[in-house]
Amino acid sequence: MIGVFDSGLGGLTVLKALVEHLPNQKFVYLGDTARLPYGAKSGETILKYTEQNLHFLKKLNVQALVIACNSASAHWHSPEFEGLPVFTVIHPTSAQAAKLTRNKRVGLLATRATVGSNSYVKSLQEIDPAIELYAQAAPLLVPFAEEGLVNDPLTNLIVYRYAQPLLAENIDTLILGCTHYPILKEALYKVCGAQVELIESGHAVAAELTAYLEKNPQMTVAHSKTPRITVLTTDSSEHFKKWAQEILSPISVDQWNLVDLA
Amino acid sequence: MIGVFDSGLGGLTVLKALVEHLPNQKFVYLGDTARLPYGAKSGETILKYTEQNLHFLKKLNVQALVIACNSASAHWHSPEFEGLPVFTVIHPTSAQAAKLTRNKRVGLLATRATVGSNSYVKSLQEIDPAIELYAQAAPLLVPFAEEGLVNDPLTNLIVYRYAQPLLAENIDTLILGCTHYPILKEALYKVCGAQVELIESGHAVAAELTAYLEKNPQMTVAHSKTPRITVLTTDSSEHFKKWAQEILSPISVDQWNLVDLA
Repeated sequence: MIGVFDSGLGGLTVLKALVEHLPNQKFVYLGDTARLPYGAKSGETILKYTEQNLHFLKKLNVQALVIACNSASAHWHSPEFEGLPVFTVIHPTSAQAAKLTRNKRVGLLATRATVGSNSYVKSLQEIDPAIELYAQAAPLLVPFAEEGLVNDPLTNLIVYRYAQPLLAENIDTLILGCTHYPILKEALYKVCGAQVELIESGHAVAAELTAYLEKNPQMTVAHSKTPRITVLTTDSSEHFKKWAQEILSPISVDQWNLVDLA
Repeated sequence: MIGVFDSGLGGLTVLKALVEHLPNQKFVYLGDTARLPYGAKSGETILKYTEQNLHFLKKLNVQALVIACNSASAHWHSPEFEGLPVFTVIHPTSAQAAKLTRNKRVGLLATRATVGSNSYVKSLQEIDPAIELYAQAAPLLVPFAEEGLVNDPLTNLIVYRYAQPLLAENIDTLILGCTHYPILKEALYKVCGAQVELIESGHAVAAELTAYLEKNPQMTVAHSKTPRITVLTTDSSEHFKKWAQEILSPISVDQWNLVDLA
């Protein structure tokens, strides 16, 4: 079983990719909805919450951990947690962007916490020092995504405001540096146009985890198929459940539970 | 000393009114910034966090408690907490709206949690059963206020979207049912026009607390003047500090501290 966490809905875009790549794995997803959003918090607070979430997932006997939140990934610097492998979204997403850019001008939209951590700058520099990164904090995109305003003129306007300074730098690749942003993909496509490649974290981290599991076949033990996907949240919300089903569709959740980390 | 709390910046609009009404009192303000916003959370979680905040303030030896957050006030139903008087914003704000409406058609903008609690409906019904309340959840106003987008065309558009259905009901009075909303007063005035009275919680709750203290003079003990105003937050943020000073101006904060409730 793989443990995955995010502050809220965003990490479900990663969970969906993981399930598509690893159809025989079991997953437990933790959405820390009581304390979202993470991206406006300090590094110390994000790290504290990340450790609490990883600790909670470890107690459920998972075999690997995925931090499906850029703000949390940006503040996590170890490949493992108490003996379990930890996968973050920063490295695979950077690698994907580095592979696809042609003019070496890459844009980043992310939370204030992720931009402030400089994690993407460092990661891209390690992969290809010739790449220029143009970063823009986009603090209102998580609230818009959590509200589900996916097809709305106001979403287009706010996306335009954040993306315009990056487009003016002639980027050809844009990292969606927050797992909530794929929820607003329609507006991002409209604003950025077909000539800019949008990079999501989901499939990139799924490919990295799949390669790891192929090298460590003992971790892919046979499981009874039900419940295959469990979604846990730290706050109860019908709004979350409705949007979670929409994001994961056609994948269905086998079990929903409310949990208390405090 | 009076203890005041809110999830973030919003309650500072109440603190400012309290300081203006009670210039000789000492205040300690707790902004639970690590866990904001409250308005999208469930009633159970809001109540749990409220109790933790009140408990924390009580340990600082305050003599009265003010819940300067509508979402928390809407889920708090006792006039005291462990022997200390508790003042919430719902009743005084409702009383002010009831006093000022001429056509008995009152609008409410508030968080999803406050609207869902029906607290303002119940409170206004008790004061004047002839009043009709038209309520609109405005979940994106807190993120806009926390971002400090006070003079921005996007703020005007989002305020217009939320206020328009209420204005169409011919309201003459609008309750700003979240203490963050006075931060966006300029946009609210522009959208609602001069014929609609905007009701803020700050002065209403300050008047109620002042009346209480006049009846209980033993609580207004002489204090050394410094530090008169202490602001505590559960997360560190330069952004918060900058905006806090702007909201409170010309009142200055004597002491800032980071605290851990967990």
